[in-house]
This record gives sequence, C-alpha cells and structure tokens, in this order.
Amino acid sequence: MAEKPYQLVVSRTRTVEEHVLDVLEVFNKGTQEVEIKGYGREIDKVADVYNAIKDRLGDGVSLEGTSIGSETKDRRRISYLLLRLKRIY
Amino acid sequence: MAEKPYQLVVSRTRTVEEHVLDVLEVFNKGTQEVEIKGYGREIDKVADVYNAIKDRLGDGVSLEGTSIGSETKDRRRISYLLLRLKRIY
Repeated sequence: MAEKPYQLVVSRTRTVEEHVLDVLEVFNKGTQEVEIKGYGREIDKVADVYNAIKDRLGDGVSLEGTSIGSETKDRRRISYLLLRLKRIY
Repeated sequence: MAEKPYQLVVSRTRTVEEHVLDVLEVFNKGTQEVEIKGYGREIDKVADVYNAIKDRLGDGVSLEGTSIGSETKDRRRISYLLLRLKRIY
C-alpha cells in the first residue's frame, strides 16, 4: 500500500518560513510526498509556501497535483486549495 | 490559431459575485476558455470565484489547468494562482 502523503494544513498563526521548515523536515526524514492544504484566507499562504519550497529545492521537488474545491466548515462553505508535492531527489 | 483565452485578473476592489458575473458574461458571448488569475492576497478569491462558478454551471464548466508560481511586481516577488476554465456546454 502506497505510503499516505504527509498533509500540512496551513495555519494563520504560523509564518510561511515555519511551514517551509516543516516540509523540509518531513522530506529530510524520507517522506516522498507532502500535501499542503489551505482554507479561505490562508489559500494564498499555500502558494507562498509552495514558491518558497521551489526557491530552495528547485527541480528537487515537483508539483504532482492540484485540487481546488469547497468544504462545509462550521456550517459555512469555504474554499480550499491543496497541492501535492513530490520529492524528486 | 486557437482563440486566446479571456483573462480575468481578480481585484481587491471587486466582489466574488462581480467576478463571477464577468465570467458568465464572457461565456455567454461565446468565449470557450477563460483564465482567472490572482496575485498575493487575492489568490483565495480566485478559488472563491471558481467555486461560485462551479456552483452555478456544475458540469457545464471544467477546470482545464492550474498554474502556480511567482512573478516580480514592484521589485517584489509575489505568488500567483491561475486557473484555466473551459465551457463544456
């Protein structure tokens, strides 16, 4: 069974750099795939975290998939963006 | 030569509904493909506009492509999200 990707949900209370560190740490521990997910106002931070990781790892990481949709949270429909990243080397 | 898709850049000063109306108007005039692009803080509005269009058109519109990256604007690197939508029927 393929290893379940590690999912990082972007939070308002943490900086882009802190999220990037989380992802690099997970990759360093050998995890191949990471999902970065953000809801509503945090969706732009998902893009920022992704770009910051690309800046550091370049071709060492690839964007495997993108998912955009909405979920019901606290009885309200809220948009989300999910990026699936794969460690290349 | 394939018709160049109409590009809508999401703006801070307009509501999600106004952007959705723009897209529906363009589709009604026969344009097949629309790109919705947002920078920085407006990236989450791109997702909101997309979800609102999906709510209204359902399977009548499909997400053909997603592009995430960063550009230099006013000497600052800023993230962007671009969605390419296609009118199905």
